[in-house]
Amino acid sequence: MAIDVGIIGATGHTGEELISLLLKHPCARIAKLYNTSVEPLVISDVFPKFKGKLDLTVKKLDIKEIMLNCDLIFLALPHTVSMGVTSKLFAEGMKIIDLSADYRLKDVKIYEEFYKTKHQDKKNLKQAVYGLPELYREEIRKAVLVANPGCYPTAAILSLAPLAAFGLIEQDSIIIDAKSGVSGAGKKLEKSLLFSEVFEDFKAYKVNVHQHMPEINQVLAKLSGKKTNITFVPHLLPLDRGILETIYVKKSKKTTNITELYKKFYKKEPFVRIKKEGEFPRIKDVAMTNFCDIGIKEDKEQVIIVSAIDNLIKGASGQAIQNMNIMCSFPEAAGLL
Amino acid sequence: MAIDVGIIGATGHTGEELISLLLKHPCARIAKLYNTSVEPLVISDVFPKFKGKLDLTVKKLDIKEIMLNCDLIFLALPHTVSMGVTSKLFAEGMKIIDLSADYRLKDVKIYEEFYKTKHQDKKNLKQAVYGLPELYREEIRKAVLVANPGCYPTAAILSLAPLAAFGLIEQDSIIIDAKSGVSGAGKKLEKSLLFSEVFEDFKAYKVNVHQHMPEINQVLAKLSGKKTNITFVPHLLPLDRGILETIYVKKSKKTTNITELYKKFYKKEPFVRIKKEGEFPRIKDVAMTNFCDIGIKEDKEQVIIVSAIDNLIKGASGQAIQNMNIMCSFPEAAGLL
Amino acid sequence: MAIDVGIIGATGHTGEELISLLLKHPCARIAKLYNTSVEPLVISDVFPKFKGKLDLTVKKLDIKEIMLNCDLIFLALPHTVSMGVTSKLFAEGMKIIDLSADYRLKDVKIYEEFYKTKHQDKKNLKQAVYGLPELYREEIRKAVLVANPGCYPTAAILSLAPLAAFGLIEQDSIIIDAKSGVSGAGKKLEKSLLFSEVFEDFKAYKVNVHQHMPEINQVLAKLSGKKTNITFVPHLLPLDRGILETIYVKKSKKTTNITELYKKFYKKEPFVRIKKEGEFPRIKDVAMTNFCDIGIKEDKEQVIIVSAIDNLIKGASGQAIQNMNIMCSFPEAAGLL
Amino acid sequence: MAIDVGIIGATGHTGEELISLLLKHPCARIAKLYNTSVEPLVISDVFPKFKGKLDLTVKKLDIKEIMLNCDLIFLALPHTVSMGVTSKLFAEGMKIIDLSADYRLKDVKIYEEFYKTKHQDKKNLKQAVYGLPELYREEIRKAVLVANPGCYPTAAILSLAPLAAFGLIEQDSIIIDAKSGVSGAGKKLEKSLLFSEVFEDFKAYKVNVHQHMPEINQVLAKLSGKKTNITFVPHLLPLDRGILETIYVKKSKKTTNITELYKKFYKKEPFVRIKKEGEFPRIKDVAMTNFCDIGIKEDKEQVIIVSAIDNLIKGASGQAIQNMNIMCSFPEAAGLL
Repeated sequence: MAIDVGIIGATGHTGEELISLLLKHPCARIAKLYNTSVEPLVISDVFPKFKGKLDLTVKKLDIKEIMLNCDLIFLALPHTVSMGVTSKLFAEGMKIIDLSADYRLKDVKIYEEFYKTKHQDKKNLKQAVYGLPELYREEIRKAVLVANPGCYPTAAILSLAPLAAFGLIEQDSIIIDAKSGVSGAGKKLEKSLLFSEVFEDFKAYKVNVHQHMPEINQVLAKLSGKKTNITFVPHLLPLDRGILETIYVKKSKKTTNITELYKKFYKKEPFVRIKKEGEFPRIKDVAMTNFCDIGIKEDKEQVIIVSAIDNLIKGASGQAIQNMNIMCSFPEAAGLL
Repeated sequence: MAIDVGIIGATGHTGEELISLLLKHPCARIAKLYNTSVEPLVISDVFPKFKGKLDLTVKKLDIKEIMLNCDLIFLALPHTVSMGVTSKLFAEGMKIIDLSADYRLKDVKIYEEFYKTKHQDKKNLKQAVYGLPELYREEIRKAVLVANPGCYPTAAILSLAPLAAFGLIEQDSIIIDAKSGVSGAGKKLEKSLLFSEVFEDFKAYKVNVHQHMPEINQVLAKLSGKKTNITFVPHLLPLDRGILETIYVKKSKKTTNITELYKKFYKKEPFVRIKKEGEFPRIKDVAMTNFCDIGIKEDKEQVIIVSAIDNLIKGASGQAIQNMNIMCSFPEAAGLL
Repeated sequence: MAIDVGIIGATGHTGEELISLLLKHPCARIAKLYNTSVEPLVISDVFPKFKGKLDLTVKKLDIKEIMLNCDLIFLALPHTVSMGVTSKLFAEGMKIIDLSADYRLKDVKIYEEFYKTKHQDKKNLKQAVYGLPELYREEIRKAVLVANPGCYPTAAILSLAPLAAFGLIEQDSIIIDAKSGVSGAGKKLEKSLLFSEVFEDFKAYKVNVHQHMPEINQVLAKLSGKKTNITFVPHLLPLDRGILETIYVKKSKKTTNITELYKKFYKKEPFVRIKKEGEFPRIKDVAMTNFCDIGIKEDKEQVIIVSAIDNLIKGASGQAIQNMNIMCSFPEAAGLL
Repeated sequence: MAIDVGIIGATGHTGEELISLLLKHPCARIAKLYNTSVEPLVISDVFPKFKGKLDLTVKKLDIKEIMLNCDLIFLALPHTVSMGVTSKLFAEGMKIIDLSADYRLKDVKIYEEFYKTKHQDKKNLKQAVYGLPELYREEIRKAVLVANPGCYPTAAILSLAPLAAFGLIEQDSIIIDAKSGVSGAGKKLEKSLLFSEVFEDFKAYKVNVHQHMPEINQVLAKLSGKKTNITFVPHLLPLDRGILETIYVKKSKKTTNITELYKKFYKKEPFVRIKKEGEFPRIKDVAMTNFCDIGIKEDKEQVIIVSAIDNLIKGASGQAIQNMNIMCSFPEAAGLL
């Protein structure tokens, strides 16, 4: 009854997190681990914490082997690398959950502008379903290729979807002040990611030019039916995991009781929790979980929304597993509570 | 030539920082330390780091002794406690720098609403000069009582003064997303300040109701000549010292070259540094200094300003010493570089 | 097939951790939560992270209710409080796992010296089994009352057991330099546990007088058959969870191949991992797990052993669940991998 | 009256700290900054915190220019690079303070074994004075070339000097369990120095093989007149600056009152503070200072010593300035309090 899954890009941050989560999953077994380099590695040498729990070898990518051994594959590769692999697996009919950005944006021009590279698999772009279960559950159920959302977009879209869907805000007034832990940046050997640079520091970066902006605009525009152009400033927190976003919007109508609206909107969602009025989320409450916590402060003319997720779980690998659960008709929260 | 100064409230965060800074000051000597409790304490028992540098006893407040021994006094007391002491010292003609909030707000009603207490020294309120040297240097020079600005307001006002003074922004569009280290909250024994609560966490608090809001509104309204009503959300960073504020405003005119404007506005200021276009401040660069670093991102219709200070230095004790330097005709940067 | 368990002391650090672990356990259900104070509390109000996962009310301790509703009870109470409750539950025949220190020391005089209180349940002391599965698995299997080991002793004893059992070291030469994260100190409102005190700091405390010393001595003396009197200096790390101990011992014989000895000794243990020669454990690899990692550096005359555990899991709640699994004939690693 | 100094290796950790300290020094001016690479850099571009305080250009090393413009030179270069430069400057008669390890060890064979490189300036080795003022003040006063001590050795030697000098301990029983902040490792781009590796972690490294061991042995052997062979395990703390060492030694005689002995030994030292019995140092008290704090726990047969320094100040750049003060007949604490 359990399925066999593979992970391509097993040695990165999101790969590591996928392994941690899958090891506890009741209906999925890690069958194969791959990376794109040549040398085979034992995963528990890379991450000694897995010693005694998973001692598989990470091998060089092998499409045939995947087709023979896996029921579903996770791609935890950098963007632009991902699409080269995805197109081949898609051609073979493999169920794919791609954690990169390569299949998230429907407009190729925008992709190429923000990711500074040519898109190499335009024809499959239309097949890809944006893997945010709270909005696209039915599409995900039938999908072969799921584009797993970015971390910032997950928190931003869940925070704004009810307002956008009901046309309650000025769609051009959205300001998102986002703060992320360092794991969001991956494990690159960059000076800016050294302990001595991050510890005791806090700073803004990519001020209003971050590549996650078009992803948020795309979904909010679709929901509201109006062109959307957010203001977005991300910041780097001196901690490992977690995103908190503080969002400011102008009301378009004299609505009230926004908190109640959110509670209704997300009533049946297993992983969205709306805080009582006057209470706001914190990273500590969502770290190591698949939850998105949302708190709302409603004033006469504006709404302030604060939301928090674990960037590696609801913002990446946890959401990927939630998508797997939906695609495979497992209980949606299996392995995630 | 050096003056003798006293500190009332020597055992709190800002008292500790005043001592650290004054120990390096070429023109001031710490003559007396006081607190409001009964037990005398040796300051180097409270802060072992001062052992061998300052071994004065912290005594119970004694107005007469202050008058006989001090040329200037710093009050590093909680608000509402401060005004009781200040009124007595002011009556005696002592030069006072009050680090509490008690003399910052000119409108008593607003003070009483936000600080939830009766003001007990209304008559001296008018005498108090708001101690932000970049805007009120001449008044400070002649002042007897200086109300040292709050930490959040220092960064916010310095970030917005040039725009407000020249009427370049919609005065009702100001959104301030502020992030502060834990030392801003003092040393209270509160659950929310425990290591296990703060470490690895990040959260918003007092969402759009913080007591520093009227202080910012008061100064910006005066500068712009227009009623000002900021949106303000403070957050708690998992680090000890530093504030970073990300500020969003709508332009009122098609101005350009805002960075240049700021450079001119602060040209002669020893403690304000304007970043080049495309560069933004970080807490690491201002920690342990009296600098306020400001970076600007100018779009067609809005301006994003990011500023950073050390909340205990430029946001409290360093600015207090800058004010002392001005009041005593010392070089303004003495002991601060 | 699943059992119903209760937790007394559900709102402390170890209570919180027990809940987290039990929520994922395949064979145990949290039936009841208690504390010793009067006010009932909803557990997800105390720990918002449990919202939607566990919304039980924490009630005042009620022995009858426990007897009717629980198959096994965890006591996560402070020492000295625990024995009062344990004696009553033991009289009724309830299976008990006590996470306090009250039943760990067989010598009442030593208990009373180190915990500075009278022991109130001497008669049940003999019944209590020391809950370190790697040494006392068979006794635990039959036990009604298990005294769950302290965090420092768990790492220390697992690090030294093979050497002590085979008489390979001078039993009076043992030096344990231990370092623990802050969660080891619980959630008391103490100045020394404030963020501003712990962050960027590191210090020794209770130098060679810590109350965990007799616990380590007792077990090592029993294993070696020789009086044991360790030197023990604990330190406080600026992080939340994790213990690392660096242990120095003199050899009593010209033994070699100590690493091999350890590998054999712990061959069948699911939660002890011996590092290859030249490799040493780190807190990151055991945090959030029930593992104890051990690395060995063997010189001619001495052995240096470095070991690491998560103080809240293998050092407290995880080990408690391991004990439950043994007592209830569940797979020993159930809910712990 | 002030002297002009130069720094070679201005862009590393110790170079940065030298600049910070020299900017506050009353008798020294930073005249020249050099590094060993080709591209000239403005120091305030490398460290924006110096903007407005020091905007000198870091140039390529130029021996002639140094001779013409500097009265004393600091070498803050990696070991093995340093000796190439030192030999040239020494030949010209320049006063040199070398912060590398190249001139610390008198035995070339040991240097070459531990630093895995040939020594290239053996003939000047004898001229070099080991720059620990508390032991070698008179030699430093007359020195032309000072070998500034390592960070671990500074704390270790100050902790053990009184016992070694009076022959009170078994010289072969010394165990040093050392813990250092990350800045001790410099600013290399290494995976092990990434924030995600260090944060929330703690680990031992170079277990009993660290290159600072012979430096400690050399000085303690000289002091005691006995061969010394310490056991030494360094650990990496998740913080930026600070070293704490916990040291265990066996008494050779039935001495008592060791704390008093230490107080007398260091009575006139401006930068060594002995704690009262029962009190121990912490990193917070010495961070950002040139102090070494020492606390002692005396048992019948052993002594436990705990000491703390700021690794970048007393362990490197602060001690270098203390040495400069002595060499130039400035007050020894000038610029360091």
